[in-house]
Order: sequence, then C-alpha cells, then structure tokens
Amino acid sequence: MKQALLCALLATAALLGCATPTPTVVATPPTGSGDLGVVVERAQGSLQVINTTSRQILGGIAGLGDLSHASVVYGRDGATAYVFGRDGALSKVNLLTHKTDARVQQSGNSIGGAISQDGSLVAAQNYQPGGIKVFDAKTLALVADIPAEYAPGKLSRVVGLADLPGKRFIYSLFDAGEIWIADLSGPGLPKITKFKDVGRQPYDALLTPNGRHYIAGLFGEDGLAMIDLWAPEPKVTRILGGYGRGQEPLPVFKMPHLRGWAVAGRLAYLPAIGRHEVLVVDTENWAEVGRIKVAGQPVFVIARPDGRQVWVNFAVPDYNRVQVIDTQTRQVIKTLEPGKAVLHMEFTPRGEAVWISSRDDNRVSVIATDSFETQTVLSADAPSGIFFSSRANRMGF
Amino acid sequence: MKQALLCALLATAALLGCATPTPTVVATPPTGSGDLGVVVERAQGSLQVINTTSRQILGGIAGLGDLSHASVVYGRDGATAYVFGRDGALSKVNLLTHKTDARVQQSGNSIGGAISQDGSLVAAQNYQPGGIKVFDAKTLALVADIPAEYAPGKLSRVVGLADLPGKRFIYSLFDAGEIWIADLSGPGLPKITKFKDVGRQPYDALLTPNGRHYIAGLFGEDGLAMIDLWAPEPKVTRILGGYGRGQEPLPVFKMPHLRGWAVAGRLAYLPAIGRHEVLVVDTENWAEVGRIKVAGQPVFVIARPDGRQVWVNFAVPDYNRVQVIDTQTRQVIKTLEPGKAVLHMEFTPRGEAVWISSRDDNRVSVIATDSFETQTVLSADAPSGIFFSSRANRMGF
Repeated sequence: MKQALLCALLATAALLGCATPTPTVVATPPTGSGDLGVVVERAQGSLQVINTTSRQILGGIAGLGDLSHASVVYGRDGATAYVFGRDGALSKVNLLTHKTDARVQQSGNSIGGAISQDGSLVAAQNYQPGGIKVFDAKTLALVADIPAEYAPGKLSRVVGLADLPGKRFIYSLFDAGEIWIADLSGPGLPKITKFKDVGRQPYDALLTPNGRHYIAGLFGEDGLAMIDLWAPEPKVTRILGGYGRGQEPLPVFKMPHLRGWAVAGRLAYLPAIGRHEVLVVDTENWAEVGRIKVAGQPVFVIARPDGRQVWVNFAVPDYNRVQVIDTQTRQVIKTLEPGKAVLHMEFTPRGEAVWISSRDDNRVSVIATDSFETQTVLSADAPSGIFFSSRANRMGF
Repeated sequence: MKQALLCALLATAALLGCATPTPTVVATPPTGSGDLGVVVERAQGSLQVINTTSRQILGGIAGLGDLSHASVVYGRDGATAYVFGRDGALSKVNLLTHKTDARVQQSGNSIGGAISQDGSLVAAQNYQPGGIKVFDAKTLALVADIPAEYAPGKLSRVVGLADLPGKRFIYSLFDAGEIWIADLSGPGLPKITKFKDVGRQPYDALLTPNGRHYIAGLFGEDGLAMIDLWAPEPKVTRILGGYGRGQEPLPVFKMPHLRGWAVAGRLAYLPAIGRHEVLVVDTENWAEVGRIKVAGQPVFVIARPDGRQVWVNFAVPDYNRVQVIDTQTRQVIKTLEPGKAVLHMEFTPRGEAVWISSRDDNRVSVIATDSFETQTVLSADAPSGIFFSSRANRMGF
C-alpha cells in the first residue's frame, strides 16, 4: 500500500519533469497535511497554499474564477479542499499537488458551502437559482438539486448553510423567513424538514461548536432565530429580542459574519450589528450578560481555540485594526494594526498564532497570540479568507 | 516548492524500486494525513497505520520495543508520530512511509509523553530514572534533562505529563506529592515552578480541553488536586474530597486513565475509582452533581467530540463491554460487546464513528455512533491504544 502510494507520487512527479534522482540519495521523508492551509486571493481568483509550521507560501492554485466572497471546506484527508466561488463555481483542489482535480459551474451566484460529517457529500448554497445543490465529494457529480421553492415558482436565496451529524445540512431562506434541514442519509430523495415563520430575512447563521444550536441572524427585525437541535422535537425560538439593531437603526457598513461568532466556554461573543460593541451571551439561556466596547463595527468575532481570548476585526472605516478581548476580564487587552483592510483571521489549531489578511496592503501577517509579536509577513495579492486544513475536524465549518 | 517536494518523493519512490511509470498515465492525486492514525500492537511492539475514511489498515511499523503501556503524540503535520514505549524508548515514525525516522533509548522505564504547542519539543515522563527529558522534535536530540529530585538524591516517578501554552510542560511527582511546570521558552536552563503538598501519590492527571484546569488523581487519599492555570497566581486546591475512594475502600482492578476523562459542555464525567459508577462534576465549581451506574469499574470515560454521548470501558472482569451514556438524560442508552478485553476507544474527529480495540480477540471494531452498527472489523495483534492524527490539533494530548 505504501509502495503503491509512492509509485503514484512517482508518476505524478515524472509528469512534472523532475530530474532523475541518484538512487543512493535518501530523500527527506514526506510530511503530512495537518499544517497546510490556503489564503484566498480574491481579485485574481487564486489560492496560495501555505504551511503554518514553516510559515511559508508553498505555491499557488490559479484559475478558480470569482473569489470575491469565496469560502473553503476540507475533505477528511485534510489535503483536499473545496472552493466555493461567488460566480457559482465549485472547485476541488489538492494542497499537495497544487492542482485542481475537478470543477463544476453549479450555479450563477453562490455564497459558500459545507461538507457532510462523513466527508462524502459537498453542498453549495446558492442565491441564483435559490437553493442548495449537493455533490459527490470525490467526483463532484450532482447528487441532489434542492430548489428553495417556498411558494409556487418562488425560489429563495439560501444563506447560513452548515453540516449536521449524519448526511444532513441545515440552511436559511432569506426571502422566505424559513430554515430547512435536508437529510440525504436515505436511499431515495432527500428528506426535507421545514421550519416556517422563523423571522424576517435571516441573512446568515452559525452552528455552535458542539452542533447543538443553530442560530440565524435576522436582517428584517430585531433578535435572532435559534433551534436546539438536540431537543426531542426541535423548534424555533426567538432570542436576544431588542438586542440593539431595532432600538435605533444605525448605518451598517458591512454585515457581520455570523459563522465567526465565538463560543468560549459557556459564553458566546457576537457582533452587535451597527454598533461598536461585542455582545456577551450565556449559551445556557441565551440571555445577554454583557457588552464590550470595541474600536468599530465588528465583522468577525473569533475565539482563540482555548477560549481565553477573542479577536475582533471591523467594518470600514475601522478595518485597519484588530482588537483582542481577554475573556476572563472582558476587557480589550490589545489593539493591533496589522495592515489596511483586515478581512479575515484564522488561528492555528492549538492557538499559538493567528494569521491575518490585510487586503489593501497585499499581505498576510502571522502574529503570536501570547506576545502579540509579528512572527512573519507574507505577500499575497488582495488576500481575503484564510482556511487551515484543521477545519476538516470541525462541525459547522 | 511543489516540484521540489515531489522530486523528493520521487527519490524516495525510486529507492523502493517502483516500476518506471509511463509518462502518459495520470496518477491518482496524493491524499493528506488528516484521516490517518495508528493502532498499537502491544505484544509484538509494532503499529498498524490505518485510514479512517477507507477504514483500512495501510501497513505496519515494527521494531518499536516494549509497547505494553505505549502512548503516541503527533507533530503539527499530522504524519509524524512520536511513540513512547514502556521500555524508555522514544521513536519518531512517519505514517506516510511507515518508517522509523529516529529513535532514542531515553530512559529505563517510561509512561508516556507530550508535545509542545508549537510542535518543536517532545517530552517523555519517566519512572526510571524519575524525571522528564525533553527532545528536539525534528532530530530527537536531547534539549533538557530535568530529574524529579524532590529531596537530596531522591528522584520521583513522573506521571500526568501534559503540554501547556508556550513551550511549557506540567506533570506530577508520584513519590513527592508535587506538581511541577517546566518552562522551556527561554534561552537558558528550563525554569521550574513547583507546587508542593498537593496530596499523597498523584497517579495520573488530565488537562481540560481548553488547557485551563490541571487535575491530578490521588492514590494515597480521597479527592483530587486541581490547579486553575488561568488564575493570576495559580495554586493547588483540593476538589471532590470524599468522592468515594476513601469511604469504603474497594479492590481496584485497574487504575482509570484520567487523561480519558470526558468534558462535555460544562460537565465533566469521570471514573469513580473502584466503583461501578461514573461521576458527573460541574466544571464551574468542581462539585459533584450526579452519579451514573455502569456495568463495571470504569477505565476510560470519553466524550464523543460533540459531547452528546460519553463512552465507557471497564476493568476486568467486565472488560468485554462498552457502555454509552446520553449526556442529556444521563442514562446508559446502549451496552455493546465488541470483543474480549476492550483496552481503548478513539473517536473520529467529527464523531461519526468510534474505533475500539479488543486485545484478546485480536481485533479493532469501527462502530457508528448514531446507529451503533459495526461498520468494519479489522485484524490486529493484541491491539491496545488507538491514536488518530487529529490529536495534533488538541492541547493536553
């Protein structure tokens, strides 16, 4: 088996025109994919493959189309990544060969995707035509096309897609005010469970790290829609009614990404839409227990893997800054300025470093989370999302 | 960079005598290490390398010495594993080549090890001579030898070793009743912090998943020793005094493995020593909040990654059974008999399956955690510990 793998690699290497090695040279042993990741170069539609141990760029994968709002999920092996382009293209790329192994133009306008718990199915959430499409993770062959038809002939844009245990996906219908669960575990057609009247215009959602609570933000009204998926009969309840948005509507410069919400221990930290605040919420009763003043309108609010810190970036005009909250004192303990137009932050799996993309400075900064020292700065063309292979191990990503 | 890597692989493949491929054949792309793992074959001192996606054995790594109480930690790449043998040998193996890349006979009697947060240092905890030794993770060159000398000329056996953020390790001194932290972040000698009089005979310990609480079980008295490592000035406090052990001493057929203790949400589930019970403890105040009757003396009590289930195996004579606790109802919902002498259980990273070793039936069972159906049974020689590469991403493992 080992030899078969290496011979397969040999074939690949031969295709690339490597010089024939002298047989007496013992090569460096191959390394795994656990410390690999990609940085999205949104303007030119490419990825940079990076290594978080050597803190280097290993090479690029180009020709992936419009990556202006791209997201990435990982197969179970951690070297296979699925890239969802804004233009509706779904690409399967390999972080070891830097090649695109499969690609399908699956819709006209897509906003991300998810991968099933067992890694066998990849789902894309689409604006145009509204619905989700599910693909075989190996071949990208279409397995199911599930239009979000909420009234005769009316298709809703789909947001907030996440995987649930088993071959299930949960997602929100922006135009319908509904949440659906598609179950693809059976042999026949997908089984759809619909939650209606969840609130107006769910615009994004998150799944808590344990997969228990699905929470959709509502653009059309104050509060959020929550489902306890472990309840014997799950139903939608409203939480955080009047948490700020409706109180005195403020201009919103950029919608927060709910998937970035931080759950640290028993508490969740979430961006207050339009306000310079991070809300602190008790996940046992979903009541607000505090607010933390920050430097701008928060976009991503992400916990370091151990939950001891929460890092926040901001909408324009404060998007050159990143702030760090200590979760024990609930104080901002550090303000960083890693570069212009910070779009995303990704922690290494055990949290010793965070990678931050600064789009308008064309760079990615690697920062130690204990000393806040910048360890490395890498060049990338208009970098946006950063996605490490450790996401393969997590639900709701 | 990509080409350099492949050429290196080509060299390796050439050494193995692969047939020269025809250049027109496009090889199967290489896959990552995210779904790899090892099964310890304790009697013959070997590992079986397995894949959790294909549920297959890929090959073996032999010649690792006495693996009768072996444990394994992973480098950041997920393909490099460090094997701590009972005979004091430390081996660095590669899950892609199935080769041993480095090996050192570092002590006379060892009981496991840990890897630093940044992956640069590997530490072994030793009984003989008592202390820890720290090695360069790349070369296995000795970096620091730290004898556990608690009184002039007296060395303690070391147990309960775990990594802390930064280049730090925490461990317990069985013979001294002390807990030490070794900090190797500075340029000079390791800085040692000592906690004295923690209780008699700490025999094993665990670090909570967030790295905040270190808890040592005490063999010599009732209760456990706990340190809140996030406190401004960490100190030892006693928890769960009189939790059972001292009440009416019972014969203990096998000491529970504390590192297997389950933390699911706010609650921790832990084996009651000598009793047929699992204790439920609130991690906010470390008070006991319940007990669950189980089929025998629990050894490993491990939460499924989402915390919705806790799986338990048992000491002799009940070690053919495995029980599943539902954490919402705190009831045993399933009793399984996967084979004789169940020694270990390991969940896939997203929890859809669990791998269980049955030593005396020479097999490893792969069981779905939703339906409890056995998906695959693999043959292995007297299998004990099972360690998946996803451990690379976790603290305290």
